[in-house]
Amino acid sequence: MISPWASELPADYERLMREFGIESFPELLPQIPNPHLLMRRGVIFGHRDFGRVLEAMKSGSPYAVMTGLMPSGPMHLGHKMVIDELKWFQERGAEIFLCVADVEAHVMRGLSLKEAERVAVEEYLSNYLALGLDLERCHLYFQSRSRRVKDLSLTLGTMVNFSELRAIYGFTGESKASHIFYPLLDVSDILHVQLPELGGPRPTVVPVGVDQDPHLRLARDLASRAGLVPPSSIYHRLMRGLTGGKMSSSQPQTAILLGDSAEEVRKKVWDAFTGGQPTEKEQRELGGNPKQCVVFELMVYHLIEDDAELARVSESCRTGKLVCGECKRRAIDLLGRFLGSLQTRRENLLPKALELAKAAKD
Amino acid sequence: MISPWASELPADYERLMREFGIESFPELLPQIPNPHLLMRRGVIFGHRDFGRVLEAMKSGSPYAVMTGLMPSGPMHLGHKMVIDELKWFQERGAEIFLCVADVEAHVMRGLSLKEAERVAVEEYLSNYLALGLDLERCHLYFQSRSRRVKDLSLTLGTMVNFSELRAIYGFTGESKASHIFYPLLDVSDILHVQLPELGGPRPTVVPVGVDQDPHLRLARDLASRAGLVPPSSIYHRLMRGLTGGKMSSSQPQTAILLGDSAEEVRKKVWDAFTGGQPTEKEQRELGGNPKQCVVFELMVYHLIEDDAELARVSESCRTGKLVCGECKRRAIDLLGRFLGSLQTRRENLLPKALELAKAAKD
Repeated sequence: MISPWASELPADYERLMREFGIESFPELLPQIPNPHLLMRRGVIFGHRDFGRVLEAMKSGSPYAVMTGLMPSGPMHLGHKMVIDELKWFQERGAEIFLCVADVEAHVMRGLSLKEAERVAVEEYLSNYLALGLDLERCHLYFQSRSRRVKDLSLTLGTMVNFSELRAIYGFTGESKASHIFYPLLDVSDILHVQLPELGGPRPTVVPVGVDQDPHLRLARDLASRAGLVPPSSIYHRLMRGLTGGKMSSSQPQTAILLGDSAEEVRKKVWDAFTGGQPTEKEQRELGGNPKQCVVFELMVYHLIEDDAELARVSESCRTGKLVCGECKRRAIDLLGRFLGSLQTRRENLLPKALELAKAAKD
Repeated sequence: MISPWASELPADYERLMREFGIESFPELLPQIPNPHLLMRRGVIFGHRDFGRVLEAMKSGSPYAVMTGLMPSGPMHLGHKMVIDELKWFQERGAEIFLCVADVEAHVMRGLSLKEAERVAVEEYLSNYLALGLDLERCHLYFQSRSRRVKDLSLTLGTMVNFSELRAIYGFTGESKASHIFYPLLDVSDILHVQLPELGGPRPTVVPVGVDQDPHLRLARDLASRAGLVPPSSIYHRLMRGLTGGKMSSSQPQTAILLGDSAEEVRKKVWDAFTGGQPTEKEQRELGGNPKQCVVFELMVYHLIEDDAELARVSESCRTGKLVCGECKRRAIDLLGRFLGSLQTRRENLLPKALELAKAAKD
């Protein structure tokens, strides 16, 4: 089932898909047993070569899921989507590799590795556990501690020249040496799971936002050159910011942080950009537009599990039965309860996250 | 004492010194107690900031000596010069850092790290021990195993851009990513000895052939940017090839390998390029030219310890008393005895070299 709110993709996503050959995920949906809500609802809109992974899932042959986190700021709802996807794969027995990209935080954002480790534990790993990901069954590692990844990056770096990197990433003479080299570390994170000692060549899927596609294209090229299986990928839409523009950790009013208090949530949702009419009267008469509403997006991505219930919300909005105030109060209530319970679990799981981080090697 | 054969430097060395601000080493000589023969004879012809190290030596304050070896081919007499210099520093209580640049051999020459380790032990470390360097008193480490060096390279790589690297190394669009990044690893080898846990900022001298100067210029720039002491360097002339051109490991007839048999030595020296006249008769009448003679160079750099004796050889050649056949027989005899005894010691020290390599961490 492809729900109505998923049938239209923004124009820039369509362009990306055409330009870079990303295929439609909804077309695969009939082959996927019990698809995740992000799949059912078209939030995961595209893929490359996911068929290869589906086959492995169906035949029970080995495949891996690979993802990373950059520990450079607070975790927000946009980050939660990847964890939801990982949980879905983990429930199906997938072997999951999770990279703490502390070198990326250091090179790209100037954090010390020590500070990056603190952020990784307090903002990410503890929340991952609280969200229900079983980190003990993941290969959790820190980029800075992985000799395998660093050595592979230097090997793969002999297979790609500056012109190719410039074409993908737009480097110039001003680009710093470590920024130019960093994509090789990123690609090595993705490909090192195919090293002989970690299971050898096999299908690997990387769940990402569409902004990460350049790394995937490079990873696929280099996999071919290095005799590995080109990694598959699935792409989710990026959540919009609460104010209607881009979501950004550095602009707190644009994102719900997992650590937000009930009061912060209330204020952020109350000020959010909606698809409602200027006045309640007009809304009752003309109806609202859930497709353009960020509060509805929160419900689609995170707050309402039941598809029928979600369809009722959409319908009530479009027909003017539901007005924004009422809808926002519901979102505030759902979010508040979700975050309250998450924050308690996270607090209790912090020591375990710390222990897992200390034990993580490569 | 500056010996006559050292007073003239080839034109291209003079140009390099002018262009890149390398200072004259012989001018420092009066300040150096018991200078090594490579110093006395002007083989070490240049330096940058060696005064800083001399001061530390004299005042007994801490300083370090840093060098590396690339394990990608057999060790020859040209490589021996750095070991002679290290021994000189070690006899004076210097703290020596020795890097096995296995990543360089991998990235630049395509050896596997395993193969590079084998070459490092069998060709280099065992010979270093046989030549009398006390490796147990050195910080011996493998580039591939040093997290410190790799992490520092990524930090330093955020302080230099592509244009700067291109100006020093001549990179183009065709340059591979790992080749572009490699200089940062090399610079990190030099600078990591100043990390707090390894002794903190202090004078460091890097003994090199003049072809290594680009790395030193980059290391000095980045040291300033990173708040470290710019490393000093001393430059030795590169030995010429036996056939008069460049010495190269890949052309065995140009170099005396430390593993050469007596018969190989005999043949190579017999065919060597000399400063002699076309016939013995002309040599007796006109005299030879030791300055242009590669056999004499062997004596200056390696075979004759006593300066007075070396002066006698030079004089006898120039006046025609000594002819090439006789001189070559002497060189063959000296070399044969030196290598014969070295090879026996190396054979006996191979297990120790292997053990030191296994134990070397970072």
